[in-house]
Amino acid sequence: MSHADILAASGLSKSDTTGGTLAVRTPVDGSEIARLKVHGAAEADAMIARAHGAFLAWRKVPAPRRGEFVRLLGEELRRQKQALGALVTLECGKILQEGLGEVQEMIDICDFAVGLSRQLYGLTIASERPGHAMRETWHPMGVCGVITAFNFPVAPWCWNAALALVCGDPVIWKPSEKTPLTALAVQKICEKVRAGFGDDAPEGLTQVLIGDRELGEALTANPKVAIVSATGSVPMGRAVAADMSKRLGRTILELGGNNAMIVAPSADLEMALRAIVFSAVGTAGQRCTSLRRLIVQEDVYDALMPRLIKAYEGLPIGDPLAGGTLVGPLIDSQAMVAMDAALETAKSQGGSVHGGGRALADSHPAAAYVRPAIVEMPSQSSIMHRETFAPILYVVKYRALDDAIAMQNAVPQGLSSCIFSTDVRETEHFLSAAGSDCGIANVNIGPSGAEIGGAFGGEKETGGGRESGSDAWKGYMRRQTNTINYSRELPLAQGIRFDI
Amino acid sequence: MSHADILAASGLSKSDTTGGTLAVRTPVDGSEIARLKVHGAAEADAMIARAHGAFLAWRKVPAPRRGEFVRLLGEELRRQKQALGALVTLECGKILQEGLGEVQEMIDICDFAVGLSRQLYGLTIASERPGHAMRETWHPMGVCGVITAFNFPVAPWCWNAALALVCGDPVIWKPSEKTPLTALAVQKICEKVRAGFGDDAPEGLTQVLIGDRELGEALTANPKVAIVSATGSVPMGRAVAADMSKRLGRTILELGGNNAMIVAPSADLEMALRAIVFSAVGTAGQRCTSLRRLIVQEDVYDALMPRLIKAYEGLPIGDPLAGGTLVGPLIDSQAMVAMDAALETAKSQGGSVHGGGRALADSHPAAAYVRPAIVEMPSQSSIMHRETFAPILYVVKYRALDDAIAMQNAVPQGLSSCIFSTDVRETEHFLSAAGSDCGIANVNIGPSGAEIGGAFGGEKETGGGRESGSDAWKGYMRRQTNTINYSRELPLAQGIRFDI
Amino acid sequence: MSHADILAASGLSKSDTTGGTLAVRTPVDGSEIARLKVHGAAEADAMIARAHGAFLAWRKVPAPRRGEFVRLLGEELRRQKQALGALVTLECGKILQEGLGEVQEMIDICDFAVGLSRQLYGLTIASERPGHAMRETWHPMGVCGVITAFNFPVAPWCWNAALALVCGDPVIWKPSEKTPLTALAVQKICEKVRAGFGDDAPEGLTQVLIGDRELGEALTANPKVAIVSATGSVPMGRAVAADMSKRLGRTILELGGNNAMIVAPSADLEMALRAIVFSAVGTAGQRCTSLRRLIVQEDVYDALMPRLIKAYEGLPIGDPLAGGTLVGPLIDSQAMVAMDAALETAKSQGGSVHGGGRALADSHPAAAYVRPAIVEMPSQSSIMHRETFAPILYVVKYRALDDAIAMQNAVPQGLSSCIFSTDVRETEHFLSAAGSDCGIANVNIGPSGAEIGGAFGGEKETGGGRESGSDAWKGYMRRQTNTINYSRELPLAQGIRFDI
Amino acid sequence: MSHADILAASGLSKSDTTGGTLAVRTPVDGSEIARLKVHGAAEADAMIARAHGAFLAWRKVPAPRRGEFVRLLGEELRRQKQALGALVTLECGKILQEGLGEVQEMIDICDFAVGLSRQLYGLTIASERPGHAMRETWHPMGVCGVITAFNFPVAPWCWNAALALVCGDPVIWKPSEKTPLTALAVQKICEKVRAGFGDDAPEGLTQVLIGDRELGEALTANPKVAIVSATGSVPMGRAVAADMSKRLGRTILELGGNNAMIVAPSADLEMALRAIVFSAVGTAGQRCTSLRRLIVQEDVYDALMPRLIKAYEGLPIGDPLAGGTLVGPLIDSQAMVAMDAALETAKSQGGSVHGGGRALADSHPAAAYVRPAIVEMPSQSSIMHRETFAPILYVVKYRALDDAIAMQNAVPQGLSSCIFSTDVRETEHFLSAAGSDCGIANVNIGPSGAEIGGAFGGEKETGGGRESGSDAWKGYMRRQTNTINYSRELPLAQGIRFDI
Repeated sequence: MSHADILAASGLSKSDTTGGTLAVRTPVDGSEIARLKVHGAAEADAMIARAHGAFLAWRKVPAPRRGEFVRLLGEELRRQKQALGALVTLECGKILQEGLGEVQEMIDICDFAVGLSRQLYGLTIASERPGHAMRETWHPMGVCGVITAFNFPVAPWCWNAALALVCGDPVIWKPSEKTPLTALAVQKICEKVRAGFGDDAPEGLTQVLIGDRELGEALTANPKVAIVSATGSVPMGRAVAADMSKRLGRTILELGGNNAMIVAPSADLEMALRAIVFSAVGTAGQRCTSLRRLIVQEDVYDALMPRLIKAYEGLPIGDPLAGGTLVGPLIDSQAMVAMDAALETAKSQGGSVHGGGRALADSHPAAAYVRPAIVEMPSQSSIMHRETFAPILYVVKYRALDDAIAMQNAVPQGLSSCIFSTDVRETEHFLSAAGSDCGIANVNIGPSGAEIGGAFGGEKETGGGRESGSDAWKGYMRRQTNTINYSRELPLAQGIRFDI
Repeated sequence: MSHADILAASGLSKSDTTGGTLAVRTPVDGSEIARLKVHGAAEADAMIARAHGAFLAWRKVPAPRRGEFVRLLGEELRRQKQALGALVTLECGKILQEGLGEVQEMIDICDFAVGLSRQLYGLTIASERPGHAMRETWHPMGVCGVITAFNFPVAPWCWNAALALVCGDPVIWKPSEKTPLTALAVQKICEKVRAGFGDDAPEGLTQVLIGDRELGEALTANPKVAIVSATGSVPMGRAVAADMSKRLGRTILELGGNNAMIVAPSADLEMALRAIVFSAVGTAGQRCTSLRRLIVQEDVYDALMPRLIKAYEGLPIGDPLAGGTLVGPLIDSQAMVAMDAALETAKSQGGSVHGGGRALADSHPAAAYVRPAIVEMPSQSSIMHRETFAPILYVVKYRALDDAIAMQNAVPQGLSSCIFSTDVRETEHFLSAAGSDCGIANVNIGPSGAEIGGAFGGEKETGGGRESGSDAWKGYMRRQTNTINYSRELPLAQGIRFDI
Repeated sequence: MSHADILAASGLSKSDTTGGTLAVRTPVDGSEIARLKVHGAAEADAMIARAHGAFLAWRKVPAPRRGEFVRLLGEELRRQKQALGALVTLECGKILQEGLGEVQEMIDICDFAVGLSRQLYGLTIASERPGHAMRETWHPMGVCGVITAFNFPVAPWCWNAALALVCGDPVIWKPSEKTPLTALAVQKICEKVRAGFGDDAPEGLTQVLIGDRELGEALTANPKVAIVSATGSVPMGRAVAADMSKRLGRTILELGGNNAMIVAPSADLEMALRAIVFSAVGTAGQRCTSLRRLIVQEDVYDALMPRLIKAYEGLPIGDPLAGGTLVGPLIDSQAMVAMDAALETAKSQGGSVHGGGRALADSHPAAAYVRPAIVEMPSQSSIMHRETFAPILYVVKYRALDDAIAMQNAVPQGLSSCIFSTDVRETEHFLSAAGSDCGIANVNIGPSGAEIGGAFGGEKETGGGRESGSDAWKGYMRRQTNTINYSRELPLAQGIRFDI
Repeated sequence: MSHADILAASGLSKSDTTGGTLAVRTPVDGSEIARLKVHGAAEADAMIARAHGAFLAWRKVPAPRRGEFVRLLGEELRRQKQALGALVTLECGKILQEGLGEVQEMIDICDFAVGLSRQLYGLTIASERPGHAMRETWHPMGVCGVITAFNFPVAPWCWNAALALVCGDPVIWKPSEKTPLTALAVQKICEKVRAGFGDDAPEGLTQVLIGDRELGEALTANPKVAIVSATGSVPMGRAVAADMSKRLGRTILELGGNNAMIVAPSADLEMALRAIVFSAVGTAGQRCTSLRRLIVQEDVYDALMPRLIKAYEGLPIGDPLAGGTLVGPLIDSQAMVAMDAALETAKSQGGSVHGGGRALADSHPAAAYVRPAIVEMPSQSSIMHRETFAPILYVVKYRALDDAIAMQNAVPQGLSSCIFSTDVRETEHFLSAAGSDCGIANVNIGPSGAEIGGAFGGEKETGGGRESGSDAWKGYMRRQTNTINYSRELPLAQGIRFDI
């Protein structure tokens, strides 16, 4: 399939993809595949106004009916899974299996949200006063701005949007300026669903803002945007948080990760090996949950490392749309430069590098293919405290498990983590209050590839937000505590007397 | 009881209350009752370091054992209820009934937290992969800084501390510089409990920071303070939020309220009258949940207002320690000035003022006693959008309920609200997604005086935090999502294939 | 559409519906529409063995994958809604709108169950011992037998089956011998879904037992049937409970209702009128939630009753497949006899009867059409304590609300109830601990027509079971409490010392 | 302390313990320590009537206030812990450490129930209809009968009573006729609490029925007893279930256990050894959770068994009130006879017996002291499928874990189970849907000694009830599903149209 065919299959017309100023290049070969019109701040405000109008109507639509909208969205995504998955690959460079996986994640969260639409459970609560009923209910919150990053161009939007829509909140999406096409394609799907839904799905229920950082600021600045959910870098997240703190608005932040795996002596090394490669190299190391640090017990270090280096050497690098490829390109040449710089720094800190360096330069001169790198480090030095969005895997040794956990927790990020061990004392300790400080902590699987049923996110510089499963939906609603006095008395709480 | 006796009964010794630079005056008569040593930034950092050390130990103490600490705290508070209640009254000026009520609230939340200590429920979750178990657990978060305001000098600390301690988090308390004595007295209670508890309650579990705003900044600046829970004004909250956003730290903000009551035609006016007076005049109008805006349906306006004005005229103003007093002093003369200014502004916006003005000037020249004021307003003008911490009650008329709700929601704050109506269609509409936008919405009781079983807080400029009951405890813990693979396979989520 | 066409559209072939001994007659005109083969006890045991084998496999299929089966079932039901709805009407006589509603309920519960399939939440729990983790998980329970009644031939099966399947339990369905065709049609749908699903849906996942009461006994007697969920009469439920008590097996019982509406002085009489008619006359009064007792405040009695009697007189009685019909036939002539007998008894107890008696005897001599009856009773006499499965509405007066509630609660059944009142004091009192003792208590809607999001069922002779929404799914799983010691110590709970 | 002193310290007076017909003997030396008056069926009915009257009042007392009653009960139990613990030991023969542990368990559940008293959470639920609110609330259920067994004379009552009282249900206790004194002592504590509580704790809130099985039948027969919670043997449970099925009443059954431990090759054998001894020999093997079956992997069998046999040989048998004793007497000589018979049967099935036989016959001729027995069995024969209430531990070997699990699950009981293994794959498999079928499944601790925070109970012949922690409180309340229509429309669920 040609790139043009992929665009067409996604429902994007010529007029959608031409005539603008924002050049979209595919990392597959670096070629320009579209040139989009961008929105300005005034258009952003108009969209927000439209979304707020939609909110006033949508909040009154019963939640199960809102769920029906999301169910239909999931059905349409099922229908368009192949096309949209290919577009994801074309636009962000992840291999097709992962592009399809991302669409599947959208579908899964839609199914989950449909179930939520008959729950959105608040509580009835025992009151201390006779003739009083107490309860807590959850109500729609308002317009939800969603800022997404290039590496997961569509799934995080859907984590947010499926929940937000069921919760009664219209969504305005500002995708990465590197991956706006997938956003447009998804918006077309939404509009198709809306067209078939009925009058109670208002105009402006889902919208897309195309452009750069200033549009993000348009969202954070406008008090009609009740929630800003942002996925991306720590500096971006800090900026969003600072802006929102001015108006005491709500944020859901999913920022950087610096994810480690501890390999214990009792680990199944064959499984660990496969998990390492997938989680360090998948999406060319550009997942927020990519494995970046490998902390290996010294007794198994020599058994593991040669096999790992060998596995890396055999990795098929190439066109992510082609079957068999496991490593696609980086998003752009800046990413390649950053990777090189990190490897240089690592070397200067004593690191011994395996792999790394540009690949396919001849066949794909305008693209940023690289060879994934393993760096054996003498200790966890400063470079390992940073997140470099590239397939670099730092490896250090440990002796005692608590040292490994301390290393794992020593970085400023707090997203994902895992241990490979078959010893239940080790695994439960790793999951305990004294174990990993990450929002995600796994046993005998890698740090990436979460199921949608759990809450996704982490503390520290990861930003503290939670998306997707569990009760992440509460982030899209406002909580209201009610006390209803149905008696003819007026007793005060805490037994206070106040008689006028 | 003399003021000195009240101090002594609270366990505060001469050396506790003399020799420092921070003058503490009682609003009862404006006299100085203590002069406290203040802490500097370096001392704050030392305290934080001690608290963090305590955290590393306390997080490993089983939660039910942590609950035992809080149970004993509750028992000690029961024992010292009278003494502490009187000190509350002495230091912040609320009437003794309310001082005792505040201590009762501390006791109640301790009981609640003890129950939580065998819950702190996470979830086990159905995994999509065979041989995998998924769950979500809640772990201690770290040191919790608690900033409180003068008007509730002790209860909000306990809302935070009882939960934080059970959740595994040591607490550093920065009370208002206007009410530091109650904090010291409570800290003595804590130390007594700790002394009797056993070695597993580490030094530094609870601490008090005496001083001004800079100490609050010491808390927000130090990354070892994982959570800052702050109660107070909107500008204070904004500052805390801005500081914490720099390091992506967690906040729990309980800021301003501008709370309204809607009186519908079907209301029981006798009950409404009593509720209005208590919630507008209690704590001399200095509760964050004080009733500030009365929105009365035009058909019952004339039946209600004369009775209300008459009730105000008969309110006993005086020494809050004396039996029979219902209105004590404002916290200080600045508050009186602010009240006067607000009343002037209200007049300039068309308001007709009943009451207001200084009281007891002769007998209490150094204190700030005022007569509560009712201001009949022609419409909800700008002064009504502001929170003035004083007993001013603005009154406006409405015709249709949706207009009343729109007025109620038009202010920037979102804390508390209520409706007096016996019509279930009205009351449920008021509690619905299209009703009050406040965190608290009551029926046939006033906006103040929440039970501890519900979550307390609100959206918009109120800051979005929740304290006290329901699942507010989650604000003191970190959530961890776990996937455990106990199979010998390594399937990927979303059905992705990635075979090396 | 002819009756044969309806059968054919439902996917039932000639060989499905002929050649057996069980005659199936449509209440529409009393004609025989099928003659089915019945199963014997040995076949039942073979089915149970097959189901148990399916259980051993199905319990290991991840719950979200089991949810996918139920999602596909829901999709197939959407496709066949018209056909299946018509078959429901043909077989049990309810009007087509209600037949379609029943299928919609199946669809709704499938959607809900899909959402559950990524939840099935257990708890992680704070342990009192260091180095210990505590949790509660929910596991598949075993084969679930489902016994259903003629009046809801398909929805209750689906309430049970959608949950049971997601929970990991195969289902064996014993429909009423009066409505086996709908069961066969649904089973065909299930088999179609299974065929398209993949190998992990085992043979025997859903099965249908055709025959009489003895087959129900085959289910209750066989210890491989872990759960028997039965909908029907109180005597049937008692028999099931007695049988299951012998082997301490689990039951879910949905038995009789004797549902009342209280009409208070503040009621919207127009709405009450419509609600009364629908809930008393819908399904020809043969719902377990049908309105049977109307308790009217004396001050509004005269305003309500003439309008109600008039509305009854105008009710279109006739072929339930025809548009416009609101009252279809009773299930059979025995039901008509029972109705007549009840009316006679009511008269003997002082009742004044409006309506009642056979209808359409000429045009439909073999069918059991009746005119719905209203019986004004001097007081709540013994006939009103009994559930007669027919459109009889007893009416009594009350003076004070507590008297009305006492009457409402005085009957042995405890299923559904409601109040029409606009007074929030009355409505909340009705819903309080001192109010209705029914499992369902509504305000300003009738007692029938529950949404699937809430739990359905009631206490007393209604049997105590809960189906459908909320956490009714727990009835299909077993709870397991786990304590995991990952320390190297062995502390005992409650601080017990036992040193060997 | 003499036996008389123990009675006196428990607050039992001469008139309490003399003058009746029921002889109470202490298993410590077989002497008669009291002769109690017994109740007849008429007295039981009078008590039930009184309890029902108490229910009508207590259900309206706010739950947090009911919690205060239970808090005070816990405080009083703290005060009387030593005295009551000694009485437990005197009356049932368990060692003093265990007697005290049982009282501690009472205290713990009181603390837990106090926390619940501000929860008793129902749900607010998203409704499919505009202008409708849906929720689920939990209401007091009625009188709760509690039948307890001799081996845990007080804790199970408190598991039930603390929850029941908080839930609004008065309690009538029928203790074992072998241990009525502890019940009387606890009732005195309750009355003391009630006397100090205030008028809102009605007479009849807690009552004790002294006598035999017929009194249990008085509870099951009387429809005013809404719940019967029974702990004891399977035949007793079956009888209760059969009786209650006649009136479709609610039961909570905690019946027999036949609890196993699997010792895997990776187990910490030292820990396993200690856990085996405590759980097999504690309470002289008379716990429902006593370890009865040991399933040892063949590779570690020889390492474990000699140490276990040696440990048994050194067990101090003697007066349970004396310090140092680990094995007290059986409850009576019938228990000794049953133990001997079981050992004979085991021998006849190929078992090789270590230990067993009477002990201390000379010093305590009227008591039933025995030596705990280990029986090595060639396979799991029929005797191992039975629960013998005595310190007999059957041991069998296994090769593969799934065989061990199959053996573990092959018995009719389903209460408790555990595995000793450090291999997380084994431990998680054991806890999975394909693992243990018991209500309790532990890792690296024995099957007995549950914390009160988890739900206690099991499926199969164990009866299916759950007591103590988690949401076991729901067993004492009735669930009510509410839909409130606050609109002016009357839409039907499932989109049904029915226009009159």
